[in-house]
Amino acid sequence: MRLLDDPNRLLPADPATRRVAAALHDTVRDHPIVSPHGHVDPRLVLDDLPFPDPAHLLIVPDHYVLRMLHANGVPLDRLGRGEPVDPREIWREFASRWHLFAGTPVRAWLEETFRSVFGLTEHPDTANADEQYDAVQAWIDAPGSRPRALVESFDIEVLATTDDPVDDLAAHQALRDDPTFSRHVLPTFRPDRFLDPSAPVWRTAVTELEDAGGVDCGTAAGLIRALEARREHFRACGATATDTSTIDPWTVRLEPSELERVHRDALAGTVSPDDAAAYRAHMLWELARMSSEDGLVMQLHPGVVRNHHGGTLARYGADTGHDIPTATTFTQPLRQMLEDFGTHPAFRLVLFTVDETTFSREIAPLAGFYPSVYAGAPWWFLDSPNGIRRFREAVTDSAGFYKTSGFIDDTRAFLSIPARHDVSRRTDAGWLAELVVTGRLGTEEATRIATDLVGVIPRTAFRLPGAPA
Amino acid sequence: MRLLDDPNRLLPADPATRRVAAALHDTVRDHPIVSPHGHVDPRLVLDDLPFPDPAHLLIVPDHYVLRMLHANGVPLDRLGRGEPVDPREIWREFASRWHLFAGTPVRAWLEETFRSVFGLTEHPDTANADEQYDAVQAWIDAPGSRPRALVESFDIEVLATTDDPVDDLAAHQALRDDPTFSRHVLPTFRPDRFLDPSAPVWRTAVTELEDAGGVDCGTAAGLIRALEARREHFRACGATATDTSTIDPWTVRLEPSELERVHRDALAGTVSPDDAAAYRAHMLWELARMSSEDGLVMQLHPGVVRNHHGGTLARYGADTGHDIPTATTFTQPLRQMLEDFGTHPAFRLVLFTVDETTFSREIAPLAGFYPSVYAGAPWWFLDSPNGIRRFREAVTDSAGFYKTSGFIDDTRAFLSIPARHDVSRRTDAGWLAELVVTGRLGTEEATRIATDLVGVIPRTAFRLPGAPA
Amino acid sequence: MRLLDDPNRLLPADPATRRVAAALHDTVRDHPIVSPHGHVDPRLVLDDLPFPDPAHLLIVPDHYVLRMLHANGVPLDRLGRGEPVDPREIWREFASRWHLFAGTPVRAWLEETFRSVFGLTEHPDTANADEQYDAVQAWIDAPGSRPRALVESFDIEVLATTDDPVDDLAAHQALRDDPTFSRHVLPTFRPDRFLDPSAPVWRTAVTELEDAGGVDCGTAAGLIRALEARREHFRACGATATDTSTIDPWTVRLEPSELERVHRDALAGTVSPDDAAAYRAHMLWELARMSSEDGLVMQLHPGVVRNHHGGTLARYGADTGHDIPTATTFTQPLRQMLEDFGTHPAFRLVLFTVDETTFSREIAPLAGFYPSVYAGAPWWFLDSPNGIRRFREAVTDSAGFYKTSGFIDDTRAFLSIPARHDVSRRTDAGWLAELVVTGRLGTEEATRIATDLVGVIPRTAFRLPGAPA
Repeated sequence: MRLLDDPNRLLPADPATRRVAAALHDTVRDHPIVSPHGHVDPRLVLDDLPFPDPAHLLIVPDHYVLRMLHANGVPLDRLGRGEPVDPREIWREFASRWHLFAGTPVRAWLEETFRSVFGLTEHPDTANADEQYDAVQAWIDAPGSRPRALVESFDIEVLATTDDPVDDLAAHQALRDDPTFSRHVLPTFRPDRFLDPSAPVWRTAVTELEDAGGVDCGTAAGLIRALEARREHFRACGATATDTSTIDPWTVRLEPSELERVHRDALAGTVSPDDAAAYRAHMLWELARMSSEDGLVMQLHPGVVRNHHGGTLARYGADTGHDIPTATTFTQPLRQMLEDFGTHPAFRLVLFTVDETTFSREIAPLAGFYPSVYAGAPWWFLDSPNGIRRFREAVTDSAGFYKTSGFIDDTRAFLSIPARHDVSRRTDAGWLAELVVTGRLGTEEATRIATDLVGVIPRTAFRLPGAPA
Repeated sequence: MRLLDDPNRLLPADPATRRVAAALHDTVRDHPIVSPHGHVDPRLVLDDLPFPDPAHLLIVPDHYVLRMLHANGVPLDRLGRGEPVDPREIWREFASRWHLFAGTPVRAWLEETFRSVFGLTEHPDTANADEQYDAVQAWIDAPGSRPRALVESFDIEVLATTDDPVDDLAAHQALRDDPTFSRHVLPTFRPDRFLDPSAPVWRTAVTELEDAGGVDCGTAAGLIRALEARREHFRACGATATDTSTIDPWTVRLEPSELERVHRDALAGTVSPDDAAAYRAHMLWELARMSSEDGLVMQLHPGVVRNHHGGTLARYGADTGHDIPTATTFTQPLRQMLEDFGTHPAFRLVLFTVDETTFSREIAPLAGFYPSVYAGAPWWFLDSPNGIRRFREAVTDSAGFYKTSGFIDDTRAFLSIPARHDVSRRTDAGWLAELVVTGRLGTEEATRIATDLVGVIPRTAFRLPGAPA
Repeated sequence: MRLLDDPNRLLPADPATRRVAAALHDTVRDHPIVSPHGHVDPRLVLDDLPFPDPAHLLIVPDHYVLRMLHANGVPLDRLGRGEPVDPREIWREFASRWHLFAGTPVRAWLEETFRSVFGLTEHPDTANADEQYDAVQAWIDAPGSRPRALVESFDIEVLATTDDPVDDLAAHQALRDDPTFSRHVLPTFRPDRFLDPSAPVWRTAVTELEDAGGVDCGTAAGLIRALEARREHFRACGATATDTSTIDPWTVRLEPSELERVHRDALAGTVSPDDAAAYRAHMLWELARMSSEDGLVMQLHPGVVRNHHGGTLARYGADTGHDIPTATTFTQPLRQMLEDFGTHPAFRLVLFTVDETTFSREIAPLAGFYPSVYAGAPWWFLDSPNGIRRFREAVTDSAGFYKTSGFIDDTRAFLSIPARHDVSRRTDAGWLAELVVTGRLGTEEATRIATDLVGVIPRTAFRLPGAPA
């Protein structure tokens, strides 16, 4: 079967609406990519080495692909997550199960990558698996396929990474200092492992932070000072944002003495579950407080149960496809944080969710009152044409377009970045076209909004280079 | 930019569906307006004074408009909610930020008001702000712009207001007694401040009720008798309904002795949070019991966290844009109430929600079994073309059309009433047309339903003048 | 009014999409019906007696019809659920209220039954009630209207029933042994009344199980062995699945001694609510454990508050229209079960919900990782064209098509089975056509998926006769 190549793909079916949408998409299709949140390793760009084989380029590291194959009976062993496997065998497993991805966003991203990046014309299948594997390998080996060349050919102007507070950010610094590289690769401060004092990683994290920053973290106040110092380092290296993913977004303010008591218990390994939860909620509040002082934009990604299947975690590690969403609520949990910082001019909070019931019920109403709050684009499980369409319909009523974040690709699958942004641009063009055709928006205004959605809106929400003053 | 004026606005894009929808809309567009729930002050109609300036007509009192401006960085101070501000300055703030409302229902309402009521032709912007301000002021000053003239020209046949139990309803009485005024302005009994005995307003409310009704409220039984007496007064003045908005809809039956104990504690200022919650749930049950006896239709609007931002409340008061929805559930909370009154022939309960997940999950199934329960039209945050469309799709399956309430404008923005009802008529016409074009409904039956939705359905649900016997 | 007879009914309105959808529907419209979950009594097919009168064929036993009439003021007494009522009177009540069903799935099913099965041409109404009653009675009396003839003319290849563990399955056996009957009528093991040791029915159930199986159920271990033995009997009689409906899907593992203690308390009538809940959660875990051993597919239907109105239950019994959905969650509740059996090759779990928020948030992500988990088709309150459409949109992103269950009619309304399956086929054809027209799927692949959705997909999910090895 031939790969699809419909120039009107993802635009509304109604002919009149499609014409308007196609025109809107045309005005933004070639705008540079602004990617304010993702998981590309900065060393990939710095070192500029060729990608590994096709399986390790497209399948093994992409938990979207892995999970669907696993769900349909392919053990992770056969997908290179246990003992090493011949990458050609992994590719064959994938190619023979292409039909499983029908109708999914993964299919759309892969199809565009196969067609536009590799120049292939056929769907993967059992018969062509080896031939396509070789073709992708040949593409990998070509000089124009190195990461820096792709940053240019993909026209990625801003690429935010996700980084541990103790990271020295040497790769980011080196890229900033390189006069031949004009793109922005920005670090993002991700302090998650410092938040839950009952997690096994917490004490290691605290020790590493002491080593990295030279600040005594024997007290909570010390830990907070150390985190502030690292944020300063991140800002100096170009960071404009932080990111935090907790199971829920509760925030509280503990009394200093209470906070210190829990911190001591945690260092002693005797922290109770309730105290740990309170400490985490307080630390979320502290992160908001810091954002209101240093101006780093706070991203919040709550509501995911990480590593749902302990057996898979034990055998194959994290990020193996079994992070599962759960019901989420923001209105009451965020109350203390927003009471204290919600109207602070320097504070900015971008709310993401994997529970789409919160779009119309909580996120849009919060973004529609608090100057600090922005509605984050659909994230994970919802980052599809359908999810983006539902997001716009649910959020526009109360928050409009200008309190949304702009598109977030949130990916470590480097090759999929252009395809993902194009899906978003097409879907937003379709939504704007619906508003035009139903008499709710003029063409001129729709064109301005389509353009703002890929430029001024994400630049403003994330305080990126190029944002209006 | 010129204001949009598409005669097919808000009708489906598909041409065949649009033709059917336009015909359906044509049959109902000029029907009189029945408004069974809203917040217009009856004295506005009684006194028939001119509206104040343009800013205090359209911006300052409308929390939909205020919240969007505030969310985009305009302090409430600059919008006339703190110290007095030159209304022309407020208008300029608004006019320069018209783009923020793109795609929102507020835009649709304002656009129709600007075009149909004021006869303007341009979108507000910085350049035309003063000119449009003057034009609106000139409209205000014209004799045909007085409230009573507008009630006639808008063809508002029934207008329900929202009133405190201690209100003497003199304005309603005067309008009833005026032989030159043939429209129905009906009071609605809103006893919210009597429900939560831990709220600071409760004791004041009880004292005022004693003064108004001459019934000793030192006991819960006395308070209940006093409320019953006030309901009787409301009924005598034309009321057909009550309205209650609590954070959740839990109902319980307390033992009389337990109820009296909590009442005494509350009067003494020593009520515990748990007791207060139980008292409130019992009082909700009592209100249902009263409705089953006096036949006043009970409206329930739960699920809103009022005054989310304490700092804004303290500085600018309530109704300043930071009431935020929260997750809501009805099935278990209403069980005691529906066990006792759900099949009572005189009882009627209209359920509203700001959590649209309850449309298909709870409200439609409850309305699809209990003769007393009606699915209330989309309310706040959901009172948009998209929200109404989702409501119909989610609710029709289990409740059909005849167990829904008909449209509710729920507004204090008097000028927006016709625009809001027209949005609803257009959206319902679109939904009915979809059913016709997909072979689910004949045109003749769709026409009957469209007509019933603006007449017999709200009149029946709210027991309004003109309801079938 | 004439009954509608649009050959394109339920297909998308857009002409291009409709053409694709009609072609897809044409390829599957005459495929045999595979019904893996329903409530038809096997004795209906075995005894092959004529149906009773029209009211007892279409109205009295169908809680979808009853609830809508009841919701609109017809007491169940007048619908034959109390004292016997002349069936012609029941029919008249129904015929005069046909408009109440406008837009509902019940209307679509009945309309197709009236047209295709009875050959009627007019909507029921007051004027034609007696005439249509007589026509349906004449149809009932014809030899071709006997259940077995209908199984053939409806082309029902597989019909799964729902059966109590103590059932001897004699009817199923007799049908298997009948050489003149080539269809599959399969029992389904439904152990619900053995799960909650605090329910009044539990002790009776345990006693009956002891009598039926000859295993001492004085211990939990004995009860578990007895259930295992009955499952073996069900498997021998052709069962491929079990079904369980609990208020929530929590699973835990109790220590054996703890389990036995609760079991003893339950037999003694002294079980506490918390212990009963823990016992139920443990038994759900045991049922999963058994499925992982005997390969019976486990169906889970949580989230329904049964018999919401106690007064109606007391007077008219269960299944009288007042089972009401409630908010449901799967991610945390299923964790213990999926930890232990989620990747077990013999285990299979089909998740159904009446809370559609779980489609994109939990069910699709779980089915998109665990090889054992399948996303069950929309069930009850959601088993409509709109509900099915929303299901596909919400679930396809994370689970594709091949981890869904295929359509489930879940009905005791035998005559509605073909209409229900056709609604599903039309709606799925419409969804696939949308994917084709928006460039996401080729026609060839869409045709294969449409075919798989009515054949290999349900056969695989439920391990039915004809499933691929």
